Amino acid sequence: MPYPLLRTIQCPADLRALSIDQLEPLATEIRQAICDQVSRTGGHLAPNLGVVELTLALHYVFDFSQDRLLFDVGHQCYPHKLITGRFGLLNQLRQTEGMAGFPEPRESDYDLFSVGHAGTAISTAVGMARGDQLLGNTNRRVAALVGDSSIVNGIALEGLNNAGTLKRQLLVVLNDNGMSIGKPQGALAGYFDKVRLSQTYKEMKKRAQEVLRHLPGGQTLEEVYHRFGEMTKVALAQDHMFEKFGLLCLGPVDGHDLPTLIETLNDLKDLDSPVLLHAKTIKGKGFEFATGDPTTFHSPKPFRVEGCRVELKSSGRSFTTAYADAMIELMAEDEKVVAITAGMPDGTGLAKVAPEFPERVLDVGIAESHGTDMAAGMAKAGLKPFVTIYSTFMQRAFDQVFQEVALQGLPVRFAMDRAGLVGGDGAVHHGFADIAFLRLFPNMALLAAIDEPTLKAALRFMLRCDDGPSAVRYPRDSVTVPAVQPDTPPFELGKANPLAGGDDLAILAYGIPAYDALEARTQLDHDGYSVAVYDARFAKPVDHELIGQLVESNTPILTLEDHAVGGGFGSAVLECCNARGLPTHNVHRLGLPDRWIYQGARSDQKAEAGIDAAGIARAVRRVLETGSLPPITIEAHSPTQRPRPMR
Amino acid sequence: MPYPLLRTIQCPADLRALSIDQLEPLATEIRQAICDQVSRTGGHLAPNLGVVELTLALHYVFDFSQDRLLFDVGHQCYPHKLITGRFGLLNQLRQTEGMAGFPEPRESDYDLFSVGHAGTAISTAVGMARGDQLLGNTNRRVAALVGDSSIVNGIALEGLNNAGTLKRQLLVVLNDNGMSIGKPQGALAGYFDKVRLSQTYKEMKKRAQEVLRHLPGGQTLEEVYHRFGEMTKVALAQDHMFEKFGLLCLGPVDGHDLPTLIETLNDLKDLDSPVLLHAKTIKGKGFEFATGDPTTFHSPKPFRVEGCRVELKSSGRSFTTAYADAMIELMAEDEKVVAITAGMPDGTGLAKVAPEFPERVLDVGIAESHGTDMAAGMAKAGLKPFVTIYSTFMQRAFDQVFQEVALQGLPVRFAMDRAGLVGGDGAVHHGFADIAFLRLFPNMALLAAIDEPTLKAALRFMLRCDDGPSAVRYPRDSVTVPAVQPDTPPFELGKANPLAGGDDLAILAYGIPAYDALEARTQLDHDGYSVAVYDARFAKPVDHELIGQLVESNTPILTLEDHAVGGGFGSAVLECCNARGLPTHNVHRLGLPDRWIYQGARSDQKAEAGIDAAGIARAVRRVLETGSLPPITIEAHSPTQRPRPMR
Repeated sequence: MPYPLLRTIQCPADLRALSIDQLEPLATEIRQAICDQVSRTGGHLAPNLGVVELTLALHYVFDFSQDRLLFDVGHQCYPHKLITGRFGLLNQLRQTEGMAGFPEPRESDYDLFSVGHAGTAISTAVGMARGDQLLGNTNRRVAALVGDSSIVNGIALEGLNNAGTLKRQLLVVLNDNGMSIGKPQGALAGYFDKVRLSQTYKEMKKRAQEVLRHLPGGQTLEEVYHRFGEMTKVALAQDHMFEKFGLLCLGPVDGHDLPTLIETLNDLKDLDSPVLLHAKTIKGKGFEFATGDPTTFHSPKPFRVEGCRVELKSSGRSFTTAYADAMIELMAEDEKVVAITAGMPDGTGLAKVAPEFPERVLDVGIAESHGTDMAAGMAKAGLKPFVTIYSTFMQRAFDQVFQEVALQGLPVRFAMDRAGLVGGDGAVHHGFADIAFLRLFPNMALLAAIDEPTLKAALRFMLRCDDGPSAVRYPRDSVTVPAVQPDTPPFELGKANPLAGGDDLAILAYGIPAYDALEARTQLDHDGYSVAVYDARFAKPVDHELIGQLVESNTPILTLEDHAVGGGFGSAVLECCNARGLPTHNVHRLGLPDRWIYQGARSDQKAEAGIDAAGIARAVRRVLETGSLPPITIEAHSPTQRPRPMR
Repeated sequence: MPYPLLRTIQCPADLRALSIDQLEPLATEIRQAICDQVSRTGGHLAPNLGVVELTLALHYVFDFSQDRLLFDVGHQCYPHKLITGRFGLLNQLRQTEGMAGFPEPRESDYDLFSVGHAGTAISTAVGMARGDQLLGNTNRRVAALVGDSSIVNGIALEGLNNAGTLKRQLLVVLNDNGMSIGKPQGALAGYFDKVRLSQTYKEMKKRAQEVLRHLPGGQTLEEVYHRFGEMTKVALAQDHMFEKFGLLCLGPVDGHDLPTLIETLNDLKDLDSPVLLHAKTIKGKGFEFATGDPTTFHSPKPFRVEGCRVELKSSGRSFTTAYADAMIELMAEDEKVVAITAGMPDGTGLAKVAPEFPERVLDVGIAESHGTDMAAGMAKAGLKPFVTIYSTFMQRAFDQVFQEVALQGLPVRFAMDRAGLVGGDGAVHHGFADIAFLRLFPNMALLAAIDEPTLKAALRFMLRCDDGPSAVRYPRDSVTVPAVQPDTPPFELGKANPLAGGDDLAILAYGIPAYDALEARTQLDHDGYSVAVYDARFAKPVDHELIGQLVESNTPILTLEDHAVGGGFGSAVLECCNARGLPTHNVHRLGLPDRWIYQGARSDQKAEAGIDAAGIARAVRRVLETGSLPPITIEAHSPTQRPRPMR
């Protein structure tokens, strides 16, 4: 029976019943369990291997059935889930109705926020600390676990600035693996290096002990400083930058040394002021292949370990790779093209482009707002920036797209990967909103690619968009080979592209669902229905001529998108008809419903939303047989209609 | 002839032709000119009075026809405008077709970005610095002027982190007036105080001189440190926090001492590494009434100075005041209610609430992202937070509303002031997008208030929304007295409220345009048209029963909103019909067009958009006489359709 010790842990109380010596073998079992599972199904590996001891120590010292534990990003929550009653769910990691790959309050009360976007834990921790204080629950301690790449995100820094004003306990554990998701970026990354090497945890401990013995509760940091002066200061990480934010800073400690971590946390847990504990960890700790290549093993596909060789199961050619190759072409042709990523060089494919054009590929770290404004500045200076970003992270720069890009009419290009349903990452990462919020901006051109030829053509079109912003979306998926039109015609502003003819109904598909539409068309053909499929190509502006012709010829239209059906492409088609006095009783919309779709296979999620081939065929039959579709969006939202917790 | 010296300044070259001694009297004229104008028309006063010398010194030392000057927030750009050829436009400050109150590239090439939202200048400066570098324009220097409240915004901190990695000249001038818009917030504010008092500019200068004499160009800060060690460090603001971001930090200097500023800037201007100059200024400098009450005189209404008395011209009772009084009621009744502002205690009315409930009114500083996440944490802890924020600044927390609030289904309430057209502040501040981007979220309830009774009723409804997020929007305007329905019925989810009957057409008005609709109704009555007016109250969910009845009874519907017509309330009504198989040929939409609307009187802006009473009456006649409206949204956006510069 594998994992004998881990099996016995039903809840953190079981963990606290163990002796400190037993935690080491438990840590080993946890690492093995995670590695075995991720090698089968894929998932986040290196981040979880790095925080095993930190997680065990936190649960050993705090009681998070009362105290609050906030995870930043959340992709490092597997060890936490394994010791909070979810070991039995591990084999359904990231599967439909299984265990989410991120914290998920629907699974357990030990998960406070479902997160996947970085930088938020300190801010929510400050909120819970203030909330508990105002409600008189001051016995509830608050701890936030934050990585070194997240803590330099703007929201985290805003949170620290506010945390420094707290007059109560708050612990921020800085999990510093010097790695972030890719390489760390920005001046602070270099600064952390210096700090990390500034002293050993032993010296720190000795000095910290001294101070902490003398630290009465209930004191603000200022008082502490005033009262103990130098004596306090030496106990702190020398001149740690977060001191300036008003936090008592300790460390660095070795984030894999359980006895020290537990002792330190015990010293700190009741300290009545905001504290930052700087812990030094190794990303991928425990498996050489992972520590050796923590970027590849940050969130790998399934893989097989053959002795010292590791073999990643290969999937098809992804849109991400297609984008990287297309950019290498464009950048070779036009030296004004630059590409920007916010901490995702691998996820966006730019890691492949950087070696070719080291000066023109920039990684700003997890700072989407800054990256977008920097791109605006570069465009203003005369460059042609392509901000390469996941659709879900584009949401983090909404106001910068508004003010620094769209309002200025600057030609910043946005390449939005992971548009639509994303599969295993679930609700925190779907790209369900980009069409709706980007089409609000005057002069914004919105494009979608359905395969590699159209992605290349779209990027070429955007390269020519010299006096206004543009954005292209493409999914977390493989490109279909062979493409339906290997020699796809060039993009022309506001023009759709016919893929297949038919007289009974026309599907206007925006983005990759066009391929599902073609598959549905084949099925419908067997039923004797003749359906046309158009690659809509543009959500702004939509092809008003085509739409006009179809409406006037009384051809039923089905709009199709892997985006919220409310406010998205179909909504733009409705508006187009309405603004021209065209009737819409023949216009029907298919897209994502007005509710959350949780983790699972992308194919399952498409089926759930009814935008897979079967769902599309079903919708077309229904339209042709009854003349209408059942309402997709749930307009009636009594708050009580919120999905009930799973438990 | 007033302002004799100022009149002679047509461009910065004229300024540089003056002797340093002449700058002092020029500064005095600039202050007087700004104060005279703002007293007549209102506008930003104290921020501009504070930066007169900084602005003059920057233009005296740099040549911003080549070099780059980036303003943060931008409400401190009046002195800059006066010496860049726009003295003649001052008397049309914030007027239609006049001079914008914020930097405006359409007015002058000396304005690089039209801004009004805080924290962006360092990021755009870094972008321009990198852009010029890549394009080989390294002779172009870059300077960013940032206030002490903006520099703690997340985007600014992300920008500093990136700036610290630059291997070229970049100057960040920290305009530290210790005030921000309201009182400064967060731990860093206290930190700045300490720094500000740490040394005089004279000592700093003496030490800086020493170092700078030895600083060859082309060196990175690391090299400088390495080479000069302690000798360099003593020349810097002792242990300045932004050192950690990799910037060479100098100061504080007296931001009103022209000779010193000019000498220092001359020393720094060719330094080949990122530098932060910490300047200490007095907000409102030059006028006692302004320095004495910089909050009131941050952006006052027109006022009259009577000797030592200052009299603010009073306008009607604002929605902001009505909100404050309503919150005082709610907070007295329910001790779980807390109110949060991001650096706008006065603008949001919370300054009036805070004295009553000091523990339950929180100002997080200009940190909308953090404020929203903090509110989510407080809601999770069991409180009832009302995030009080301008609609345009809500855009800065879009991703936090998504992940920390909506995805969790947490009952965070958003009170969105300045929704719709905002008048003099212009395009950077219109609340044109909130309906479209908030209705994307499942389980979000969207409300609008049309006057004081409905605002109170809406807030009471939201107080009861205990298991999901909700938001109410209200305009920058006075409440109509007497209200059309002093005893307005309570809000009921998804139910509109009839205000006036009629058979020919029904206007569904979302928010304050309902009053313009009633005015139009009276005009139309004279023409013999009988028009019904409904206060729609909800944009999510919309009143599908009412809409169904109207459509089925063949009553033409005109939707009305002071929000982008694309994606907004009217779009939601179209979707509602379409999802239910109802025809939409009788549904017509009025709202903001798909182009930017610039500064001017709110009434002018409403007229331009055609949503004032006259425009509404015109639209109704057109619908009743021709059966349709001309297209409002411009779908065809060749980038070349972007409004051409004014010059």
